[in-house]
Amino acid sequence: MSNKPTLPKGTRDFGPLQVQRRKYMLQTIERVFKKYGFMPIETPAMENLATLEGKYGDEGDQLLFRVIDSGEYFEKAKRNLIPENSIEIQNNLTENVQGIIRNVINPNVINEISEENIRSFIDSFISKYKGDEINSTSSKSRLSNSVLSYLKKEKKTLAKNIYKLILKSNLKLSDDESTFKLYFKEFQEAYLNKISLEIISELKDTRKRLSTLTSKELNNYITEKGLRYDLTVPFARFIVMNRNEIMFPFKRYQMQPVWRADRPQKGRYREFWQCDADIIGSKSLLNEIDLIQIYAEAFHELGIPYQIKINNRKVLAGIAEVVKGIEYMNTIAVAIDKLDKVGEEGVKKELNNHGFTANEIQLLFDILKTEGNAQLQELKSKLNNSAEGLRGIEELEFIISNIHSIPNGTINLSTDFSLARGLSYYTGAIFEVVATAGTLKSSIGGGGRYDNLTGIFGLPDVSGVGISFGLDRMYDVMEELNLFPDTLKACETKVLCCYFDKATQEYALRGAALLRANNIATEVYPDITKKIGKQLDYANALHIPYAVIIGENEMKSGKAVLKNLTKGTQHELSLEEIVHYLQLN
Amino acid sequence: MSNKPTLPKGTRDFGPLQVQRRKYMLQTIERVFKKYGFMPIETPAMENLATLEGKYGDEGDQLLFRVIDSGEYFEKAKRNLIPENSIEIQNNLTENVQGIIRNVINPNVINEISEENIRSFIDSFISKYKGDEINSTSSKSRLSNSVLSYLKKEKKTLAKNIYKLILKSNLKLSDDESTFKLYFKEFQEAYLNKISLEIISELKDTRKRLSTLTSKELNNYITEKGLRYDLTVPFARFIVMNRNEIMFPFKRYQMQPVWRADRPQKGRYREFWQCDADIIGSKSLLNEIDLIQIYAEAFHELGIPYQIKINNRKVLAGIAEVVKGIEYMNTIAVAIDKLDKVGEEGVKKELNNHGFTANEIQLLFDILKTEGNAQLQELKSKLNNSAEGLRGIEELEFIISNIHSIPNGTINLSTDFSLARGLSYYTGAIFEVVATAGTLKSSIGGGGRYDNLTGIFGLPDVSGVGISFGLDRMYDVMEELNLFPDTLKACETKVLCCYFDKATQEYALRGAALLRANNIATEVYPDITKKIGKQLDYANALHIPYAVIIGENEMKSGKAVLKNLTKGTQHELSLEEIVHYLQLN
Repeated sequence: MSNKPTLPKGTRDFGPLQVQRRKYMLQTIERVFKKYGFMPIETPAMENLATLEGKYGDEGDQLLFRVIDSGEYFEKAKRNLIPENSIEIQNNLTENVQGIIRNVINPNVINEISEENIRSFIDSFISKYKGDEINSTSSKSRLSNSVLSYLKKEKKTLAKNIYKLILKSNLKLSDDESTFKLYFKEFQEAYLNKISLEIISELKDTRKRLSTLTSKELNNYITEKGLRYDLTVPFARFIVMNRNEIMFPFKRYQMQPVWRADRPQKGRYREFWQCDADIIGSKSLLNEIDLIQIYAEAFHELGIPYQIKINNRKVLAGIAEVVKGIEYMNTIAVAIDKLDKVGEEGVKKELNNHGFTANEIQLLFDILKTEGNAQLQELKSKLNNSAEGLRGIEELEFIISNIHSIPNGTINLSTDFSLARGLSYYTGAIFEVVATAGTLKSSIGGGGRYDNLTGIFGLPDVSGVGISFGLDRMYDVMEELNLFPDTLKACETKVLCCYFDKATQEYALRGAALLRANNIATEVYPDITKKIGKQLDYANALHIPYAVIIGENEMKSGKAVLKNLTKGTQHELSLEEIVHYLQLN
Repeated sequence: MSNKPTLPKGTRDFGPLQVQRRKYMLQTIERVFKKYGFMPIETPAMENLATLEGKYGDEGDQLLFRVIDSGEYFEKAKRNLIPENSIEIQNNLTENVQGIIRNVINPNVINEISEENIRSFIDSFISKYKGDEINSTSSKSRLSNSVLSYLKKEKKTLAKNIYKLILKSNLKLSDDESTFKLYFKEFQEAYLNKISLEIISELKDTRKRLSTLTSKELNNYITEKGLRYDLTVPFARFIVMNRNEIMFPFKRYQMQPVWRADRPQKGRYREFWQCDADIIGSKSLLNEIDLIQIYAEAFHELGIPYQIKINNRKVLAGIAEVVKGIEYMNTIAVAIDKLDKVGEEGVKKELNNHGFTANEIQLLFDILKTEGNAQLQELKSKLNNSAEGLRGIEELEFIISNIHSIPNGTINLSTDFSLARGLSYYTGAIFEVVATAGTLKSSIGGGGRYDNLTGIFGLPDVSGVGISFGLDRMYDVMEELNLFPDTLKACETKVLCCYFDKATQEYALRGAALLRANNIATEVYPDITKKIGKQLDYANALHIPYAVIIGENEMKSGKAVLKNLTKGTQHELSLEEIVHYLQLN
């Protein structure tokens, strides 16, 4: 008996009812995306780490799931760990071989000699030795002998080649061939011993390097790929790779799982789904207006009580400018982003640590707390000295006034000037959505405008704006608030065909085929050994609403008993009548 | 400017049209699954390697994508690599400390002394030293000194403790305290030097071990998780983990990507989708009959010309029994599985290498080539001496005759006695599906019955049977044969709202809201700077069929121009009339 199987930490199986509910959510969101003209794309689960790294901050990089290269990755890593040393050794070799040449030829023409042969010898020597010795268990003396004998053998050829090269090139030797040989012999004795010691020390260094190597360093040698961390960076990569086939503005949606090696807790999983909609290649604020409507419509359809919070990075910039200086925008953003977690006092303390005076902090909170009907007007007067801040307020005004003028029911949208969101690539609008009922405090959606996300992949100046639905958190909210329609069932089978023996079983098979041909989801109970009661138990356990029971008499008369398992009523009908009845009910 | 981004080898992006087509395929297959009573489940992309390894043969294990543990996995691995040596050292330490005790106390009572203090000293010593030195760059002499000084300091306490322990326990010392101290001093001089050398050599050993470590060995230290390789093993794991909540027979479908580090080639990707249906907990052949109907119906709906091949492992067992002996079943299965690749001669050669005589090979091929209308009857006479073989033929007969008696149109099902399929867990029916048109030679589906797949996870004797659709290969076939409906479009937007200025833009926003409220997929062209011509270019590029054009006059009269972009016709209508028209067209 084997060990009990388990799931990796932070991951989950989804049983039939959960999948049906998740599909219902995905279909609802997808329908809204399509209604607003968004097109689907999908990207692979694995991305090159070059694509992922450096996009989510240091913390994000640490949360990437890294996939090791297949095959003999560690052997390769070890070979790759050596070059730093071997380059030096290679340089030494080159210098020394040049040295011997200097001794045997006219020093005045040394610079004109081709080093190709010499270099190729050195290269093959190095590459031959590297892989080999790392994996060998040779003792120091065995290694030394083998290096020596190898070098001696090769060096003779080298000596010959060098000599030939010198003769061919019409360079003048300072001596004849026998003198050259003598020089070369001396070189072998003195020099080769030195080389063998260098090789040994190189191997030692490699071992030492391995033993002091950190995981972070090793990553570079053994991993090339990672699981995607979000859908935004893969989307930016997609845009850059397909820029020539895409009609801009490009409106795409994407609904796929992402993976983060985060510490699992309530509402935080290591595999979870994001549903993203982005418009790229348009600076128009109409896109922000569409995205807000999408949020409102999807949450409304799902019945989730929601509040969309909106802010603007330019407003944050304006606040910074007025309070202390625009260069403090990120400091302020990072600090007030924690308002929910650490409270007003905590934020004040952090700002104080960053050198904010009590007056500045007072001013900041005074601005953040601008409220009431004329909120934006009031903020305008407070940020009157910041052109950037006023632009941000204008953008907010345009978006909010249009949202209110659209006849689309109530949209729960409010400004929150303390909304900052961590991601530093946002440049305009920022969104965040929270559920206004239930116990989940973290956001169920977020997004914003980014003016240069594709720039990191070499396509600058393409503005985009997007939102994301956090499917798994929304699921948790819906489950807690009991928002899933009762019509969603684990099993969608409408009728179970039951029978008594071999003959009625075959009849049931044909009857099932007829029902299925009429698009009625049908099962035939598979096991002939089970009595009708057991067969009906199966139907009841799966909440299958109808059973068709086929006995010998029914079979002979071309009929069957249709039983309503909810009501307990039953009728003898022809198969055609059963089809007709079930299509209507 | 950064490097051009790329995708990992063997993975693909899917643009809008591809996603729409894939969704169409998935929905078609899913509809059929549901019609036959199957329920959806989903499992995480990552599974513990303990779940995956050893299920797909050595080759499969090598094709697993392994995910490295997050955090300081290599540091941990290095610590885990040491214990083998350190246990020995620890044992030596214990023995030696016991030795010194033996010297200072009455040898007759040695066994009654508690070793707790001594052991705890040794443990802390060992654990303090391990992590430290591995990462340090101390030279041999610095290491030696630090070890010595540490030990000397600690040993004094130990000596004191041992002495106290001895006094407390009322044991008789063979000498007084000063003699004890003398003994202990001697111990220090001779013994501690030995220990420090052992520590140094332990460190050396670890380095050497790292440098000779293979990737396969390292895997055990740095990876715990891998990407799923198929959907069958995760399903078996799911069954075992949820056995108490599941009503058996359990019919599940699962449509998710799987990953294999295979060499990419035509029809072979590193990320690809499988669509599986399995019934578990029923031995009835009605399940096989259902699965064949599902194959037929799904391929028919998609328009893919197909041939389902069926065989039975019991027939293969019977053939082996008749030809040479039942113990040769796997040898024969593995050999004839390659018939397509290496041809008859290749298979004969392989069998010959396995010790099959020419007569045996002749007999085998004679049986495999049993054809014609009375095929199964003929095979019966040939396998007359194998009870297992006859059982297999009976199963085939039952399945085939029922498939033919069901009024469900033509099902392209044929027996193929050389069909073996690699996976060794099959015990009954085996299926394989090929496309009968197009250039793809590899299978687009496969499956079979397995009598003990959950047994590997500790739940024996649960029979199951399942099939798999290879979505990506089917896609390639459909693309090559031009089988996707023309109605599938990248963009499903029905109407683009165009406008001229700020006022008409706001009117367009409200109009769009009305259209969307009536479930008409609508876009408002976002950029006010673009002229109507450019806006219509966008609609035409995305094949959006209608445009609603709003000028100042239309706006004032509460109307708009509805333009049919395919025909080029246009009419001025009220917004309500436009809604009505688009709902009907």
